[in-house]
Amino acid sequence: MTSERQAVADGFDAWVTTLSQWVAIPSVSADPDRLPEVGASAEFLAQALRRTGFPQVEVLDSGPYQPAVYAHWPSGDANAVRVVVYGHHDVQPADGEDRWTHPPFEPMVIDEVLYGRGASDDKGNIGLHLLGLTAHLAATGRSAPAVDLTLLVEGEEESGSPHIADLLADLDGRLDADLIVVSDTGIFDAQTPSLCVGMRGMVSGELHVHGPEVDLHSGIFGGAVPNPITELARLLAGMHDEHGHITIPGFYQGVIEPTEADRTTTAALPFDETAWLAGPAHSRATWGEAGYSTLERIGIRPTAEINGIYGGYTGPGGKTIIPTDAYAKLSFRLVGRQDPAAIRAAITGYFADQVRAGLMAELTWEGDGVSPLFTDPQHPATAATQRALGGAFDTDTVLLTREGGSGPEADLVAAIGAPMVFLGVMTDDDQVHAPNERAPLALLRKGCEAVALLWRELAELGRTGLGASRGN
Amino acid sequence: MTSERQAVADGFDAWVTTLSQWVAIPSVSADPDRLPEVGASAEFLAQALRRTGFPQVEVLDSGPYQPAVYAHWPSGDANAVRVVVYGHHDVQPADGEDRWTHPPFEPMVIDEVLYGRGASDDKGNIGLHLLGLTAHLAATGRSAPAVDLTLLVEGEEESGSPHIADLLADLDGRLDADLIVVSDTGIFDAQTPSLCVGMRGMVSGELHVHGPEVDLHSGIFGGAVPNPITELARLLAGMHDEHGHITIPGFYQGVIEPTEADRTTTAALPFDETAWLAGPAHSRATWGEAGYSTLERIGIRPTAEINGIYGGYTGPGGKTIIPTDAYAKLSFRLVGRQDPAAIRAAITGYFADQVRAGLMAELTWEGDGVSPLFTDPQHPATAATQRALGGAFDTDTVLLTREGGSGPEADLVAAIGAPMVFLGVMTDDDQVHAPNERAPLALLRKGCEAVALLWRELAELGRTGLGASRGN
Repeated sequence: MTSERQAVADGFDAWVTTLSQWVAIPSVSADPDRLPEVGASAEFLAQALRRTGFPQVEVLDSGPYQPAVYAHWPSGDANAVRVVVYGHHDVQPADGEDRWTHPPFEPMVIDEVLYGRGASDDKGNIGLHLLGLTAHLAATGRSAPAVDLTLLVEGEEESGSPHIADLLADLDGRLDADLIVVSDTGIFDAQTPSLCVGMRGMVSGELHVHGPEVDLHSGIFGGAVPNPITELARLLAGMHDEHGHITIPGFYQGVIEPTEADRTTTAALPFDETAWLAGPAHSRATWGEAGYSTLERIGIRPTAEINGIYGGYTGPGGKTIIPTDAYAKLSFRLVGRQDPAAIRAAITGYFADQVRAGLMAELTWEGDGVSPLFTDPQHPATAATQRALGGAFDTDTVLLTREGGSGPEADLVAAIGAPMVFLGVMTDDDQVHAPNERAPLALLRKGCEAVALLWRELAELGRTGLGASRGN
Repeated sequence: MTSERQAVADGFDAWVTTLSQWVAIPSVSADPDRLPEVGASAEFLAQALRRTGFPQVEVLDSGPYQPAVYAHWPSGDANAVRVVVYGHHDVQPADGEDRWTHPPFEPMVIDEVLYGRGASDDKGNIGLHLLGLTAHLAATGRSAPAVDLTLLVEGEEESGSPHIADLLADLDGRLDADLIVVSDTGIFDAQTPSLCVGMRGMVSGELHVHGPEVDLHSGIFGGAVPNPITELARLLAGMHDEHGHITIPGFYQGVIEPTEADRTTTAALPFDETAWLAGPAHSRATWGEAGYSTLERIGIRPTAEINGIYGGYTGPGGKTIIPTDAYAKLSFRLVGRQDPAAIRAAITGYFADQVRAGLMAELTWEGDGVSPLFTDPQHPATAATQRALGGAFDTDTVLLTREGGSGPEADLVAAIGAPMVFLGVMTDDDQVHAPNERAPLALLRKGCEAVALLWRELAELGRTGLGASRGN
């Protein structure tokens, strides 16, 4: 028998080839024209899972959701820990073509880094479970995993998982688990393995301000009727006060203020703000809510961000009009016990109240939004995952962190009724959601090892050690 | 001999055909890809002027400006009034294709209205001088006009006439005149002929706010670095206070407050605000600077308008990013003695001062801007133009109004050193700068008659009656 590390090394080159083929499929869930590619991506993953040995693999494509993949491989041991792995195979749009020095869907390895949309988020992270499982089998000499393994890989996480409830309902009874392992997050940095214990929730949508029924000549009418772009700017600017606090009444309902202990833990992280600004944040200054550090602003504070804006004339030169319409794409990150439905109602009400007479402001929400999530740092699965990561990274120190991103994790916990841990190897350098998304091969390799080690850890812990008590 | 009215009627159908062919040429000066069409439009006008009888016609296309047309037809009378007619043959962009029920460059007459981009602004108005001159010759029995006639029709007015100074310099010595007649404005409404005595000036450009060097994941970085769209919204919203006053320091320098007499004259105009909102303004409410009426806001107050805005993700669905850049197209209408250069400096300084640390705000101005202009209501040419319009509209009452639009008129006055009158038949219903631009044939016909009558009026007045004293 071989070690997990050796088994990963043996299969790594072939695995990188497979991952690259997968990344080449432009499974952009936000773009309706890309629906066939989301289906092709699901089929590709299904085939890869079958080759890995999964006896049950299905592409779920009959629901309102974009194609998802379900796979199941029972351990054969009646008492095995039951795990559901969650991630997604759809990717962010790859616009900003001029800033992609590596074409997004022509993945390539340069200097031991894989470039391509999805190389990290989330095909890279989900891919860990292919080679990780193979290595687990090789290192344990088993013909089936030491845990009861179920994979659920959805196809519209990057669109806000608008139909996750339907997907979970369609899988009712097939997702029983003692633990949920989410592979869609990362580590503090390439030198600092860490375990995510919290993610922000999110609601997102498009704000539309409607003005005159036709574009008006800005000379003949300018100064005398309200301009919808001017009003959109006013509404958006009004979301924050001069201290960076969000002004929307009711918005902070459910936010949990950090304890002194939380603040001390966060302050102890090896965070170099200057390096972070110059590096992954590609920015010249921080900005955020007064009274909170940068890591707190990301990990435990909610946000109101504008992701896109458009309206009026945007072509070459100028056009002196008052346009009919203006639009902004908005997303709000949620924390603590903020409730997506309540926050959406607060935001909708705010714009309806604020909009100037004669204009109309309408918010079209995307999906249902997702709730914030935090896991239990005291749970035995947390320590098991820390050991697995520590084994892969050759360290005893695996920090606990909170991430600012969002996924449907709270819905999974609610639907499956099991605790959750996060296992992923994304870093802030990976240009996730940006041009030139990338994943260093060294981190992918460690991620595969960590998966293999986690299954060993969980098997050794057993259901009893995990505190699992539910029957079935 | 025939009357001006009969001569216009005789030539009208053929003239509409010619105008339609001209409107079919998409001479959009704002779009560099349309430069050949701007050239084609100039050639088309030059040919039409030659057919009308102009002995000297030139397309000026060797300067930094887009192709312009110069034409000259001396009266033959040594003492004839010398007139320069100004207008433009370029047109506004025709985006918003989905809202053009009549394709912009496939002009057609429906229910006695000509539809097409430029049907009114400004091919329609310049076209008046073709048939108007023919009718003048027919009605007077002359073989040359009773005035010394020069036409200057530029090709980039809709782009803010950025090179008008070069154009005027190239024509040095060929634009001597006792009077400038601008044909690029309109009348109060189809039932109320009026004479414009003032136009606003304008400066315009694009504001660019630059943030992170790459698009950032709004979960991983959101709340901690400044978002350029949020900042753009804040900067734009800050341009007005809650009373609609413009907050930019120095912006009101040179604005002339209306006298009580001005206010009384404006208030006496037959302006039905409710009908105006439901009709040409296509809006549900007025909005503007506190303390001024709607007509004052348009005619004598400066503005800060946003004509377009874009940045970040604007495709289908959502994309949770903090984008690198955000842009807004801005135009500012000027009045009184506001100086374009000084106002531009004030605006540039404002954005540079206001922009948040870590972001960059840069304003790229278009051309040099144009100064506001007002003509002398007491000048004999004003009364002559009122009589010409009154003759065409069969009325003795021709009101004086101020228009909110802008052109290079002040530069013309400064360069040519002659008084100016406005003769055009645009109305607020013409969808100028908007989809479905149109011109009612009845107004075009009256406009042609007014041109013919104006040449008769000016010839009867003579240089002496006009107060012209300058030597040749």
